[in-house]
Amino acid sequence: MKLPGQEEFEVSSACKNVPTGELDSSPGSGPRPDGPLDTKRGNLGVSKDPLLFIQLNELLGWPQALEWRETGRWVLFEEKVEVGAGRWSVPHVPTLALSSLQKLHSLLAEGLVLLDCPAQSFLELVEQVTRVESLSPELRGQLQALLLQRPQHLIQPTGTRPCQGSAHPREASYNEEALLKEQHQNPLRQKLPPGAEAAAVLAGELGFLVQPLGAFVRLRDPVVLGPLMEVPLPSRFFCLLLGPSTVGKGYHEIGRAMAVLLSDSQFQWTVRRASNLHDLLAALDAFLEEVTVLPPGLWDPTTRIAPPKCLPSQHKRLFSQLREVKGPPAPPGALAEDRHGHWLRTPSPELQRTGRLFGGLLQDVRRKASWYPSDFLDALHPQCLSAVLYIYLATVTNAIIFGGLLGEATSGAQGVLESFLGTAAAGATFCLMAGQPLTILSSTGPVLVFERLLFSFSRDYSLDYLPFRLWVGIWVATFCLALVATEASVLVRYFTRFTEEGFCALISLIFIYDAVGKMLSLTSAYPIQSPGSPAYGCFCQYPDPGGNESQWTRTEPKDRDDISSMDLGLVNASLLPPTECAQRGGHPRGPNCHTVPDIAFFSLLLFLTSFLLATALKHVKTSRFFPSVVRKVLGDFSSVLAMLLGCGLDSFLGLATPKLTVPSEFKPTLPGRGWLVSPFGTNPWWLSVAAALPALLLSILIFMDQQITAVILNRAEYKLRKGAGFHLDLFCVALLMLLTSVLGLPWYVSATVISLAHMDSLRRERRTCALGEPCSFLGIREQRLTGLVVFILTGTSIFLAPVLKFIPMPVLYGIFLYMGVAAMSSTQFTKRVQLLLMPAKHQPDLLLLRHVSLSRVHLFTAIQLACLGLLWIIKSTPAAIIFPLTLLGLVGVRKALERVFSPQELLWLDELMPEKERSIPEKGLEPKYSLGGDSEHSELMYQPKTPEINISVN
Amino acid sequence: MKLPGQEEFEVSSACKNVPTGELDSSPGSGPRPDGPLDTKRGNLGVSKDPLLFIQLNELLGWPQALEWRETGRWVLFEEKVEVGAGRWSVPHVPTLALSSLQKLHSLLAEGLVLLDCPAQSFLELVEQVTRVESLSPELRGQLQALLLQRPQHLIQPTGTRPCQGSAHPREASYNEEALLKEQHQNPLRQKLPPGAEAAAVLAGELGFLVQPLGAFVRLRDPVVLGPLMEVPLPSRFFCLLLGPSTVGKGYHEIGRAMAVLLSDSQFQWTVRRASNLHDLLAALDAFLEEVTVLPPGLWDPTTRIAPPKCLPSQHKRLFSQLREVKGPPAPPGALAEDRHGHWLRTPSPELQRTGRLFGGLLQDVRRKASWYPSDFLDALHPQCLSAVLYIYLATVTNAIIFGGLLGEATSGAQGVLESFLGTAAAGATFCLMAGQPLTILSSTGPVLVFERLLFSFSRDYSLDYLPFRLWVGIWVATFCLALVATEASVLVRYFTRFTEEGFCALISLIFIYDAVGKMLSLTSAYPIQSPGSPAYGCFCQYPDPGGNESQWTRTEPKDRDDISSMDLGLVNASLLPPTECAQRGGHPRGPNCHTVPDIAFFSLLLFLTSFLLATALKHVKTSRFFPSVVRKVLGDFSSVLAMLLGCGLDSFLGLATPKLTVPSEFKPTLPGRGWLVSPFGTNPWWLSVAAALPALLLSILIFMDQQITAVILNRAEYKLRKGAGFHLDLFCVALLMLLTSVLGLPWYVSATVISLAHMDSLRRERRTCALGEPCSFLGIREQRLTGLVVFILTGTSIFLAPVLKFIPMPVLYGIFLYMGVAAMSSTQFTKRVQLLLMPAKHQPDLLLLRHVSLSRVHLFTAIQLACLGLLWIIKSTPAAIIFPLTLLGLVGVRKALERVFSPQELLWLDELMPEKERSIPEKGLEPKYSLGGDSEHSELMYQPKTPEINISVN
Repeated sequence: MKLPGQEEFEVSSACKNVPTGELDSSPGSGPRPDGPLDTKRGNLGVSKDPLLFIQLNELLGWPQALEWRETGRWVLFEEKVEVGAGRWSVPHVPTLALSSLQKLHSLLAEGLVLLDCPAQSFLELVEQVTRVESLSPELRGQLQALLLQRPQHLIQPTGTRPCQGSAHPREASYNEEALLKEQHQNPLRQKLPPGAEAAAVLAGELGFLVQPLGAFVRLRDPVVLGPLMEVPLPSRFFCLLLGPSTVGKGYHEIGRAMAVLLSDSQFQWTVRRASNLHDLLAALDAFLEEVTVLPPGLWDPTTRIAPPKCLPSQHKRLFSQLREVKGPPAPPGALAEDRHGHWLRTPSPELQRTGRLFGGLLQDVRRKASWYPSDFLDALHPQCLSAVLYIYLATVTNAIIFGGLLGEATSGAQGVLESFLGTAAAGATFCLMAGQPLTILSSTGPVLVFERLLFSFSRDYSLDYLPFRLWVGIWVATFCLALVATEASVLVRYFTRFTEEGFCALISLIFIYDAVGKMLSLTSAYPIQSPGSPAYGCFCQYPDPGGNESQWTRTEPKDRDDISSMDLGLVNASLLPPTECAQRGGHPRGPNCHTVPDIAFFSLLLFLTSFLLATALKHVKTSRFFPSVVRKVLGDFSSVLAMLLGCGLDSFLGLATPKLTVPSEFKPTLPGRGWLVSPFGTNPWWLSVAAALPALLLSILIFMDQQITAVILNRAEYKLRKGAGFHLDLFCVALLMLLTSVLGLPWYVSATVISLAHMDSLRRERRTCALGEPCSFLGIREQRLTGLVVFILTGTSIFLAPVLKFIPMPVLYGIFLYMGVAAMSSTQFTKRVQLLLMPAKHQPDLLLLRHVSLSRVHLFTAIQLACLGLLWIIKSTPAAIIFPLTLLGLVGVRKALERVFSPQELLWLDELMPEKERSIPEKGLEPKYSLGGDSEHSELMYQPKTPEINISVN
Repeated sequence: MKLPGQEEFEVSSACKNVPTGELDSSPGSGPRPDGPLDTKRGNLGVSKDPLLFIQLNELLGWPQALEWRETGRWVLFEEKVEVGAGRWSVPHVPTLALSSLQKLHSLLAEGLVLLDCPAQSFLELVEQVTRVESLSPELRGQLQALLLQRPQHLIQPTGTRPCQGSAHPREASYNEEALLKEQHQNPLRQKLPPGAEAAAVLAGELGFLVQPLGAFVRLRDPVVLGPLMEVPLPSRFFCLLLGPSTVGKGYHEIGRAMAVLLSDSQFQWTVRRASNLHDLLAALDAFLEEVTVLPPGLWDPTTRIAPPKCLPSQHKRLFSQLREVKGPPAPPGALAEDRHGHWLRTPSPELQRTGRLFGGLLQDVRRKASWYPSDFLDALHPQCLSAVLYIYLATVTNAIIFGGLLGEATSGAQGVLESFLGTAAAGATFCLMAGQPLTILSSTGPVLVFERLLFSFSRDYSLDYLPFRLWVGIWVATFCLALVATEASVLVRYFTRFTEEGFCALISLIFIYDAVGKMLSLTSAYPIQSPGSPAYGCFCQYPDPGGNESQWTRTEPKDRDDISSMDLGLVNASLLPPTECAQRGGHPRGPNCHTVPDIAFFSLLLFLTSFLLATALKHVKTSRFFPSVVRKVLGDFSSVLAMLLGCGLDSFLGLATPKLTVPSEFKPTLPGRGWLVSPFGTNPWWLSVAAALPALLLSILIFMDQQITAVILNRAEYKLRKGAGFHLDLFCVALLMLLTSVLGLPWYVSATVISLAHMDSLRRERRTCALGEPCSFLGIREQRLTGLVVFILTGTSIFLAPVLKFIPMPVLYGIFLYMGVAAMSSTQFTKRVQLLLMPAKHQPDLLLLRHVSLSRVHLFTAIQLACLGLLWIIKSTPAAIIFPLTLLGLVGVRKALERVFSPQELLWLDELMPEKERSIPEKGLEPKYSLGGDSEHSELMYQPKTPEINISVN
């Protein structure tokens, strides 16, 4: 049995978010918790050999003061010692001169090659390397002494100044213990996995040699070479490249070439298995065969190339080698699968129709039941604790924001208290029952928009809202159960990016529009006093001693102008502000008694501050500043921090800005109702039937919102082992719909962003991403406990309520705006709209633009814009409530687009729909003019498909 | 004689803002307007051969539908046809497979090579190429017909959809006229200089060939090859690479390799002069010798590398070749010069001391006199018109902002009117007389700060300001003349970056502090009304009919609290606002009659809006959006636009925000003074002597401000031909000092940013920067006319004054803040302060950090921060006025730093001071451990030194 965390040390190659190669791991085939994740690599011949750390020691100072000095190191990328700065360079892609590789070739060909050398210590090794060479005994002795000399390493202890050899040249008699301590304290050691091996490359000019001396040794058993390496790893390879003085940096470059060769996975694989010199040279030639060449006039070799985000697949290299040998046709599986991985959204096996009533649900229940115990055991990891804290804060913030907005949208029929209670109850229940327990249930934008419309509809027709809403909820639950029974969730495959983004864009626009609108409506509630207006008309009037209230009433005029200029004739009056006036028994009188100055602009400031701050903090996450922990906290809690700052600013100035309404005790926000909603209230009986109509619309919305989130969460790139539960999830949502309607709590569905954040905080990653290599991703800690704890904590946070009344509404509107803008700007649609404003030559080099003509891209964008405009118009008419239906209409529009755009174009602009996917022969998807073989494929294959995360506003 | 603009077509290589190679052009040696700018390249063997445009036509569609299709083109970088998108890719650095180059080698070695082929037409050429080959007559005929077939070009007419060959395959009988028209209308043609030649590479699979067919032809006289090329250029080279079907994209890659080779300047140079096959292959081998190699496992060859900002110098390639042949030592001149170019600020030859009194001035006058006529003739270019418009707007904005700030700083002793008048008079005079007429005189931050301190000093001691100021001006003029006489300007070399940035940072901080401070002081002038305060206490009281003014006066209480609660007992009163009240003959009464609500927050909003908008617009310039003209306008006029928007917002809401004070008629702002300042006023006579003390301080400031700007403007990278005039400039500033003091106008010195903007708008550039090559910079239109016209226009703009009173002060403060922040953030000091906040692994790969250890960098930054803190403390004490002296003290601190830091470190962190520069032997500057030859040099040499432009606030 594996210890917790042990799998983090698995060495896996390259870019793991590419869907490439994940399809054959058959996630539907039942529990396989410890199954091999990278069988393919084994199949195709890339080994699971130990990681190799390569160090280049150079001989410097000929002839006066010879010394060995570490000048570079490699695992995948190169790190170079910056001599002046005494630090390691940033990891970068090594660039070589072709001539160095050629010189290395001849040096190895003429030199000594010892494979499976039995040496057990550095001394033995040195003897082996020097003995066989045609050296005079005297030279041999000198050389041995030189090789055994202790090299200078650049070890950067954290916080103190790195040791600079020039300042304190150490002697060979340096304390061995200190050395060992230094080696063991080297921070690099933490980054290399246990079992890693080392390779030492020693290169330099040695004037007393007459001819170059090259030696390549593969040790039979890896040996710790004492002080030679900066880390105490056992060395597998040892390479010596010495020679008489040459021009320029000859041996430095040859040494680097050797090190780069050793860092190449295929060279390594071959050389570990090589049986003679010929194999070694063949591996070098194979490497040369594959190198990329940059022309000298256009590229300065000293430029450091940053590590690419995604490494080229080893798969591809092998494939291209195979093709080189065997000629076409290529192994069909490999290519087709890669292409498939990029082109088509991979439908989860859970989305296959069983054909039986509730068949999908039963299958889900059966599958998830087998994982149930592990859903709690898998949570026993410290990482889960931080995930709980993070998601708890996000959930509470969400509960506050949506609670506040809901309270306003429904004129207090629901509020923050319901939001807390509902979130806790619904969330916890879902975590215990659902098919995908990583999902976080939350109020979401679409449902909020619908509830707002439903409320204004019921107000327009003077309906009793909560009972009406109860019936809507009952019907929605019924419809959703019907959808579960008929396995309708498989239709989710028809929601292509076009639909998702239309959905997201409309909701984001509504958010943005509402936030700005609510903010502007504050300026009419708290009007700005322009210079000409009678700004100062308010006094405090006391009843005159004779009980006669005042002269005011007698002379009360019709309009304001008269008030301003009339003779007031007041006697018992003072200039006390209205509140104090009332306290002292007077009456505030005058046209401006209820105008509070400064509030409008201050609210605007709060609104802008919280919006801009949240946006800025979000960007901190990807900035260069601060340690990564700080950046993560600032970025992840940007809304919380922006809200806190807004509240602080507000309470510092103490102005009477409008605040969040919070009940003072634990009872429903709506005065006079109990916890259970009465089924009819003052509504006529037939309304319970009529509620089916809005319920139908809401069911569409819930279905879309829930399933789009579920599909995103269950994407192959997240490597979930326990499978999805689309039908079970929808079933749970239906049940919770019923529960929340009966109790008059908000409605909940799965929220994309917060669920993805939850998954993200539970990522299992290989901890050793040393030297510039992108961290490799092993999977997600799939369990139910973190979610459960989060919602229990949220439930207990109801007692926070008294604190919440200090939150000013403009701050909430600011966060609201931020959410809308963030969701809007994360879509590919927005990127394409931006393309409309860019001159062609400044456009980014998007894959999309390489394959679809610009005018077609613009046409697609224009159609999307037109759809959005249409949706917006419908949303602005009295028929607004049918907007879920129009969203569904997007699927139809997308279908119609197949007549306007070719499948290739749609492939790049969107995705293919299920039938189309089947009906197009493989050949049909190829570009018509194939420009020399696989150039298109290669681009297609090796671009990571980044998950579009922000597709829903929540 | 050259026509105007003709020099734009000169072909010059590589990155022209590198100072490399500019030192030997001896700018001091007198007029040389049309001298060759790139003699060096000729000397070193890189020819002035015509530009070569290379086009790759591929044979596609074997065996069914053979057709030629253009798939790539090169001048320097590669552009590829994006087949699906029907557009050209972005220009990128071509990457090749090593194997393609090797295959090309063998194809050429075994193929036909015709050098100086006398063919006069495409037909002849095709016959030549096919005749000598061992082909059967039948095959030859087929091949000839195939070669003469018209290829498909991707020509993108602007606005319409590019022709997609797949949609409308054209026949060979295509109308010849239409073809010619298409070729001539090709937008590419505009980008290629006259005299450019073409090279055609034809490659592809041809199944009926038994063995590969390679042919390389150099035509004796370049021939227009009819429809072969997309542009009607005469072709010099023709290369045919055909062969039987191969695996993969063999011939595509070989064709690309040939095209890339031809685009390499050295290969091109050799192949133009090659006399046989051997030369051709040797050139290919020389290319191979220099290529950079990327390892296959780390680099995906389909990645497109963006063109580097700076190309590697041809110089270096030749140098490395020379070294390869001759061995060390390297040609000393070349290396030393390059190193010099990077390491040391190049002192202008104008800064050599003559040793005679006024010697420098006389030299300046003599030198400039010879250029005087051309200073007007050179302005006859349309570009100057747009420069005038641009600089005029910037100057007027500056005049408004500084006028407004000066008016406030001196309590109206000067104002906007003086600012306009002074700017016009001083600027125009300077343009006519100065040594460097590109300089734009303006109010600058340092002088404004000093004037503010001077005014508060004179107010503290109840002095008559303008007469006092007159004497200060007289003394400053005297001191400056003394500085001119003693040629003190040569001391400017002691102002290293440390001093410049200390200067800039302090002034920027003062700007930021003042802007925020002034903004906050508005909130005390217009207090925010917190809920508890008696906010509504103001009425309008009329005299009662009997002439008895009111009961108010009788009961007037001592303090406000009493007012609030007392019995008002008013009879004749109304609620009219104070202004209207006064108009109707009443009196506003009450504690809050003079409180205007909403102004504080609205001012804050205006302030933030103008600051953020100016910042955002500035960034538009480097964004991807909008055509470059729009971006340039938005970026360059960011302050004007932000100011206009602020004014618009203010007048839209119509609130009584504080506005810019503008005199209503043409007379000095200070009431009661004439245009000439009286020499004594109410001051005692001895003050005229005592004024020498502040004058000394101001002289230091003026000297530093003027000369730092002058040094930056006259840097070698701007390629000024007419030389500088440091002494003459200072002389002019001294005279203008006198003039402006007598008239009571603001004081002026050269302003860095606006002068650089002036130069920038007068750049002469080669218009043909096709295919990703950075535009090459030829020089500046050095003349006096643009400046002169700008200031005449500014003078006539005095009549704008009535419009200016609509500018709200908060908007000006916002722009003021923007100027401070922009100046602050442009310094290297700011970048180093940011490093303090970055974890080492996220730090950018700065050259600085490659060569100086991080702790030393931080120490240097900390010392700078400490200096700045000290300066700030001094500035905050009553001794603030001596701050110019403390700024000068920075030179001393910098000198002392030589004891703390090694010269190498100072070289990277700052610059070297004159003595140090001489005293360090060449060897001493080398890194102690030379890691294999010239790796350090190569990094040193080829990094462009970007001008630090924003070093002064203006």
